[in-house]
Amino acid sequence: MSRMTSSALSTASADALTSLRRNTPLVQVITNRVVPGFTANVLLALGAAGAMVDIPVEAGPFARAAHGLLVNLGTPGAEQREAMLEATEAAGDAGTPWVLDPVGIGSAPVRTPLAHVLVARGPAIVRGNASEILALARAGSGGRGVDATDAVDAAADAATAIAREHGSVVAVSGPVDLITDGTRIARVDNGDALLTRVTGGGCALGAVMAAFAAVADPFEAAVAATASYCLAAEDAAARADGPGTFAAHFLDALARIQPADVRSRAAIA
Amino acid sequence: MSRMTSSALSTASADALTSLRRNTPLVQVITNRVVPGFTANVLLALGAAGAMVDIPVEAGPFARAAHGLLVNLGTPGAEQREAMLEATEAAGDAGTPWVLDPVGIGSAPVRTPLAHVLVARGPAIVRGNASEILALARAGSGGRGVDATDAVDAAADAATAIAREHGSVVAVSGPVDLITDGTRIARVDNGDALLTRVTGGGCALGAVMAAFAAVADPFEAAVAATASYCLAAEDAAARADGPGTFAAHFLDALARIQPADVRSRAAIA
Amino acid sequence: MSRMTSSALSTASADALTSLRRNTPLVQVITNRVVPGFTANVLLALGAAGAMVDIPVEAGPFARAAHGLLVNLGTPGAEQREAMLEATEAAGDAGTPWVLDPVGIGSAPVRTPLAHVLVARGPAIVRGNASEILALARAGSGGRGVDATDAVDAAADAATAIAREHGSVVAVSGPVDLITDGTRIARVDNGDALLTRVTGGGCALGAVMAAFAAVADPFEAAVAATASYCLAAEDAAARADGPGTFAAHFLDALARIQPADVRSRAAIA
Repeated sequence: MSRMTSSALSTASADALTSLRRNTPLVQVITNRVVPGFTANVLLALGAAGAMVDIPVEAGPFARAAHGLLVNLGTPGAEQREAMLEATEAAGDAGTPWVLDPVGIGSAPVRTPLAHVLVARGPAIVRGNASEILALARAGSGGRGVDATDAVDAAADAATAIAREHGSVVAVSGPVDLITDGTRIARVDNGDALLTRVTGGGCALGAVMAAFAAVADPFEAAVAATASYCLAAEDAAARADGPGTFAAHFLDALARIQPADVRSRAAIA
Repeated sequence: MSRMTSSALSTASADALTSLRRNTPLVQVITNRVVPGFTANVLLALGAAGAMVDIPVEAGPFARAAHGLLVNLGTPGAEQREAMLEATEAAGDAGTPWVLDPVGIGSAPVRTPLAHVLVARGPAIVRGNASEILALARAGSGGRGVDATDAVDAAADAATAIAREHGSVVAVSGPVDLITDGTRIARVDNGDALLTRVTGGGCALGAVMAAFAAVADPFEAAVAATASYCLAAEDAAARADGPGTFAAHFLDALARIQPADVRSRAAIA
Repeated sequence: MSRMTSSALSTASADALTSLRRNTPLVQVITNRVVPGFTANVLLALGAAGAMVDIPVEAGPFARAAHGLLVNLGTPGAEQREAMLEATEAAGDAGTPWVLDPVGIGSAPVRTPLAHVLVARGPAIVRGNASEILALARAGSGGRGVDATDAVDAAADAATAIAREHGSVVAVSGPVDLITDGTRIARVDNGDALLTRVTGGGCALGAVMAAFAAVADPFEAAVAATASYCLAAEDAAARADGPGTFAAHFLDALARIQPADVRSRAAIA
């Protein structure tokens, strides 16, 4: 990708952040039991808002009105699975952009087939680590819970294949994040290892992508979300003494980060 | 409300905090998936204790023994709805004061009728933002998730109507909080906007009201809870660099706040 | 217990921490609604990893592959109860060490019989406060939620009885923690009262015990977990201004604590 294009993506990311702050998109969050609080705090800090509406009968109507939707498969009980199906159907019908995070799929006997059903509905963005993206392309061996045991680059082909088959942007998280729409590939080389020591570091990024997808096209949204999020992690790491203080400073940094920071500091290739 | 009465409410609030610290009331918390950790930490920091007992068969017996009960409608799955009905029936029977927080009702097709069933059981306190209180009085148009899109004052009439019909104290949160028992109206002008950037800021206040309701009458409890909570937010904001560090400092401030602070600094009108 | 043995336990605890850091055990966490985030962050900070796999059909297979398992009875809905039975059966079959935390049992009509079913399956470690351990030995009167109303020493006989009957190590938390395998008794006199002002302080320790049980025998694992955890609490208390900042510093301290600290500072008798 030429320097020109990288620069254009940095500018587009900065503009998307401006737009997000102006519109305060409301994201419907259907996520696992571990991360709802952190996810909601991330959205609020950044300038969006989250609402966890994950019960049947309510999930569908809400998905029509929300500006974005996250479906995270971490701990999908029976009611939540029903809510996921209801919400994604309504989102598809109403044009609400949604993000699929296929947490821990591979050998997981409930989540894996559910992820395949959901990806076939064409989410705007699919976000996962390399193991999960490989598993979603039916090419992987499964990860161990939420860790990535496969390298990001190994998942590039799988990501491209999913993007082309389902018309989704696919974002693969790792030391360098990879984002593709099946044609273009962007790499974002920002962030800090402390982000991997805080639970929900990846899960909350899915919600941020849903917030950006409300104000930008899916490819730019995934890039802007990754860049903003990872830059805030860099700022937080500079102040932190460990993963506990990092989490607090990270929320502060999300609230403080400016479009100009994204334009100047995002390392997008 | 005369200066005399405001001063009396500040003194009553300070006394209620003294009483809470002495009695460490145990609050049964039936709340949404996003905020249980923050809610429990708020109760512990202040000097009370929380126990999330929200499964059928256990919720009822526990409500008889608890000193207070919070029923928050944020994400009510089927089992939790059953537990809510069981707990509020037992609380009514045993005289356990309970707080209803009708999160996000209005257009929500499950929560809205449930809130109407529950309010008819006469909670000691109903707590919500203006949109939720208007919706509960069947006068509102519904909010967007947990945000207040209606002004607090617009909800004053609805709050008074609910208070009179159900014998409940009604607390409407906003930049200035309004509390009424249907006859008296108190306004608490403390707090900080950062409290709205932390998820559960409103939800945890409902649990604090339930804790105070264990040691004071519902009107004084709602005022004391609001004043103590909002003063701690002011203290935390003075030390915070953003919403992440604010949340940590807020818990510290709840643990530190003294009855004398409430008496001297509460802005109750 | 002789000074020699205490010293040997300190060394064994230090070695277990070295081993945990080297192996980064993956702990399956089946826990209550209040503490999943804190629990996962504690595991990550210390150098282990957690995965909340608590739905039927997935819980069993995962328990075969995980390095340790925590079953915490705080808020067991119907699906989670089924997952607990499935996971503990698979863990027993596959030899995965697991920890039972019988939160709030005693008078609780669902959790109490469930705890008795589970303890009969021979967990590697049972962890609870004095009230819970007494209730599990059918000798107690039940606590109030998650508080200990009985002294740790009063539970020593009950702990020994459970240890002998089920072949489990039993850890009783309190100002001084007591750990027994039915023959030996260790007491760990570290920690700080602030740990009791943070929700999940006890629950997350159960997950840490499961992580250590992946790299040491259950008795040493329970001692090493308690010592490492309580020493980190001491470090955090020295930096904290209250329970909110304590929680952040506690995670930092867990990430920073070294085997040499455990060897020199653990007060094991």
